[in-house]
Amino acid sequence: MIKNLIESKKFQNFIVFLIILNGITLGLGTSTKIVSSYGTILELIDRVIISIFTIEIILRIYVHKAKFFKDSWSLFDFFVVAISLIPANDGLSILRVLRVLRLFRLLTIIPQMRTIIGALIGVIPGIASVSMVLLLFFYVFAIMATNLFANTFPQWFGTLGESMYTLFQVMTLESWSMGIARPIMEQHPYAWIFFVIYILVVTFIMVNLFIGLIVDAIFTIKGTQNEEKSEELKEIQSLKLQLEELKQLIIKQNGKE
Amino acid sequence: MIKNLIESKKFQNFIVFLIILNGITLGLGTSTKIVSSYGTILELIDRVIISIFTIEIILRIYVHKAKFFKDSWSLFDFFVVAISLIPANDGLSILRVLRVLRLFRLLTIIPQMRTIIGALIGVIPGIASVSMVLLLFFYVFAIMATNLFANTFPQWFGTLGESMYTLFQVMTLESWSMGIARPIMEQHPYAWIFFVIYILVVTFIMVNLFIGLIVDAIFTIKGTQNEEKSEELKEIQSLKLQLEELKQLIIKQNGKE
Amino acid sequence: MIKNLIESKKFQNFIVFLIILNGITLGLGTSTKIVSSYGTILELIDRVIISIFTIEIILRIYVHKAKFFKDSWSLFDFFVVAISLIPANDGLSILRVLRVLRLFRLLTIIPQMRTIIGALIGVIPGIASVSMVLLLFFYVFAIMATNLFANTFPQWFGTLGESMYTLFQVMTLESWSMGIARPIMEQHPYAWIFFVIYILVVTFIMVNLFIGLIVDAIFTIKGTQNEEKSEELKEIQSLKLQLEELKQLIIKQNGKE
Amino acid sequence: MIKNLIESKKFQNFIVFLIILNGITLGLGTSTKIVSSYGTILELIDRVIISIFTIEIILRIYVHKAKFFKDSWSLFDFFVVAISLIPANDGLSILRVLRVLRLFRLLTIIPQMRTIIGALIGVIPGIASVSMVLLLFFYVFAIMATNLFANTFPQWFGTLGESMYTLFQVMTLESWSMGIARPIMEQHPYAWIFFVIYILVVTFIMVNLFIGLIVDAIFTIKGTQNEEKSEELKEIQSLKLQLEELKQLIIKQNGKE
Repeated sequence: MIKNLIESKKFQNFIVFLIILNGITLGLGTSTKIVSSYGTILELIDRVIISIFTIEIILRIYVHKAKFFKDSWSLFDFFVVAISLIPANDGLSILRVLRVLRLFRLLTIIPQMRTIIGALIGVIPGIASVSMVLLLFFYVFAIMATNLFANTFPQWFGTLGESMYTLFQVMTLESWSMGIARPIMEQHPYAWIFFVIYILVVTFIMVNLFIGLIVDAIFTIKGTQNEEKSEELKEIQSLKLQLEELKQLIIKQNGKE
Repeated sequence: MIKNLIESKKFQNFIVFLIILNGITLGLGTSTKIVSSYGTILELIDRVIISIFTIEIILRIYVHKAKFFKDSWSLFDFFVVAISLIPANDGLSILRVLRVLRLFRLLTIIPQMRTIIGALIGVIPGIASVSMVLLLFFYVFAIMATNLFANTFPQWFGTLGESMYTLFQVMTLESWSMGIARPIMEQHPYAWIFFVIYILVVTFIMVNLFIGLIVDAIFTIKGTQNEEKSEELKEIQSLKLQLEELKQLIIKQNGKE
Repeated sequence: MIKNLIESKKFQNFIVFLIILNGITLGLGTSTKIVSSYGTILELIDRVIISIFTIEIILRIYVHKAKFFKDSWSLFDFFVVAISLIPANDGLSILRVLRVLRLFRLLTIIPQMRTIIGALIGVIPGIASVSMVLLLFFYVFAIMATNLFANTFPQWFGTLGESMYTLFQVMTLESWSMGIARPIMEQHPYAWIFFVIYILVVTFIMVNLFIGLIVDAIFTIKGTQNEEKSEELKEIQSLKLQLEELKQLIIKQNGKE
Repeated sequence: MIKNLIESKKFQNFIVFLIILNGITLGLGTSTKIVSSYGTILELIDRVIISIFTIEIILRIYVHKAKFFKDSWSLFDFFVVAISLIPANDGLSILRVLRVLRLFRLLTIIPQMRTIIGALIGVIPGIASVSMVLLLFFYVFAIMATNLFANTFPQWFGTLGESMYTLFQVMTLESWSMGIARPIMEQHPYAWIFFVIYILVVTFIMVNLFIGLIVDAIFTIKGTQNEEKSEELKEIQSLKLQLEELKQLIIKQNGKE
């Protein structure tokens, strides 16, 4: 009976409504003006919603038991609700920010959204190995940049982490020349070799990553198309059988005469 | 008779000519120098053109009646002409700017342009659901950014609206690091996590949106190709019928003997 | 005989060699240091090369006559050589710069390069109509921007031409927000609407332009593939004829008995 | 026996482990803090690893002899290890930086990575000729820019090399307008023509380069698909043979009667 309830269309719609309502209250909660006037009511709505979410999760665990923790969508729901339940003191103020993640429950509850997220995640394995190559290049260039520029430009390449952030920025081409490379070239005149090679290599790999994704998508279409093709092949093979039958008939007739 | 007139090729060409003429006068009208010398004549041409447009729209409403308001191209024509008729006082000076929209009538009157606009709009449903996911991410990140940075960087993340604008800017990768993320990282050393995740997620979704569009376009081609394929299948099936006929002939012959 | 000469492989290679040599001398000519030491020899080489080019063009005109001026590759060669012959005085110093264009003769003389340039130009008609739509949007937004911001930001939107340049910059997303939109928003708080709509519309049209190019390229492949398909159809139709022949044979046999 | 050893799975895994370990030590070596505490142990690990690599390379040369130097993967391994063996004095401090390249051995030793690198390199011939066109445009525009702006903006266009770097920056659209073109336009009001044409041409060629890559990738798929198609053709041709056989049978029968 509880299973019927939580899987009913009405209940699902009610949860969707709550998530959207929560989205609005969280949005309004960013305005200090609105919070100072209506803070208590927003807080109240938030607590009611989180309570209902908690009950819903408990019911789902009760119904599905161990299966609940094997479904990654359910696990996601579990964690975003759990985050909201942990009291956020000063040391863990990040938790307060992560509470907003609970709006992503919209992605797990609406089937069309789930399909899209599933498709987006499904793309990842296809790019995993090229991403590994990209990461290796990234790491090697970051070590090189730190070795080269850590002393003269510690604000950008002081540590390996800072170098990685700066190289990520250069990868997005943001201010790479006027902001980073030109000031460095004033002290290291050949630094342009490093940056030009880095940009060419990283852009080249990313372009190929992107083409890989397109070709993968087309391959999937081709798969369904080839099934149709094999239908044609089957038809031709059934023609062969018909012809063989005809041949037998004629041979039989030949024998009779 | 009026119907023949407004649907005649000559009348259409005349309207196209008026729109282009209006494009030139509106262009010239941006120059204060030209306006101070020829302002009255430009104003006069503008009024004559808008009068003719108004008469044209009235005639089209008279001819097509209710159907006029069901056609979105006609509605567009109606609104851009209507905007030009509203007197623009100081409080509504935006109306004066929106008058330029009437040049877009060129898109609704030239058939080839209509086709292109139709194709561009036809692409939108295919990306609607992924855009919803993108918007949800956008909204959640905007709330988070406001919660995190509103106090320290009110000029960029002061309100939810300002956060959305800033995150749109970051999405276009414009000055995201040197302009936004690095100054913030001086006060919130871990802010790079927020920005790097945001850029990776948003870029990833947009890349997939783009691939979806390409695959959609290829699917449409495949559709027409598959029709040709089914022609082949039909040919093979007609072969089968011919063979069956042959078999009947041979069996008949067998029976005769 | 002259025809054989100028169309001979050796002569062509000699011209290619001259263009490359000219490319080197023009490159060296950018260095004031090299010019001060070897200026006269560089000038001499340049004059010799341009003389040979002039003779070559005259011979080609003599051989091909009117046909020479109908071939766009030849016309290009004619103009870049002609530009080099006009004496460049102070008023026409731009001519001196345009002389470098003669290096593009490499594109017209090497067949593989010609193919590529031909393919690049062949792509243009396919994007012409979408480009017209893009240009119309561009023009309308430029008029609007001039009307809105000419008084407050004359350095960017003072005239229609300046607005067009600035909107081209915004189209490339370069400093659009930190450099242009944010300063404007300080005086026109709603200017973000203009810029966000402009970026979304222009990006959307450009993405579709790009997809159109990809689909066009795939269509061309499909064309050749469909020819192969029709080969299959022909084979099936020849099967039909064979079967018809068989049927006639059996009927004849039936009649005989 | 040595051949079996160096080609054994275990040995390969051991080398992979050493490369990863070396990656970690090189990463840690970028931190002056860690180096001051654990510098000697990091240095020791590095020396041990490089010694093992040297022995491995010597063994591989001993086993494969001349063939070793014909395999480009092996040559790469040879050079990155050789670089690490050259003592890096002050004049050759760049060698110390290039030592990090030895981490790329991960790409040559893991088969999946090799495949990806192979695919990435395999793409290059297909874009070589378009890249040549792009380089020619790049070179011609660089000469023009140096001729035009060397006197007024020596920091960006002082020499041909500096012009090339600046035009590379403009190609990536980084600060091209606010940083480069607008300051130049204050002295050369028509400089926008140069930059706008350059950006349009270069972007257009790069877009076509990219489309070429996509079409190439699709062609490769089509190749395998066409093989399947020829299977269908073969089936139809075997049908034809069957029919011919049938015809002979009937004719024989006709003759008998």
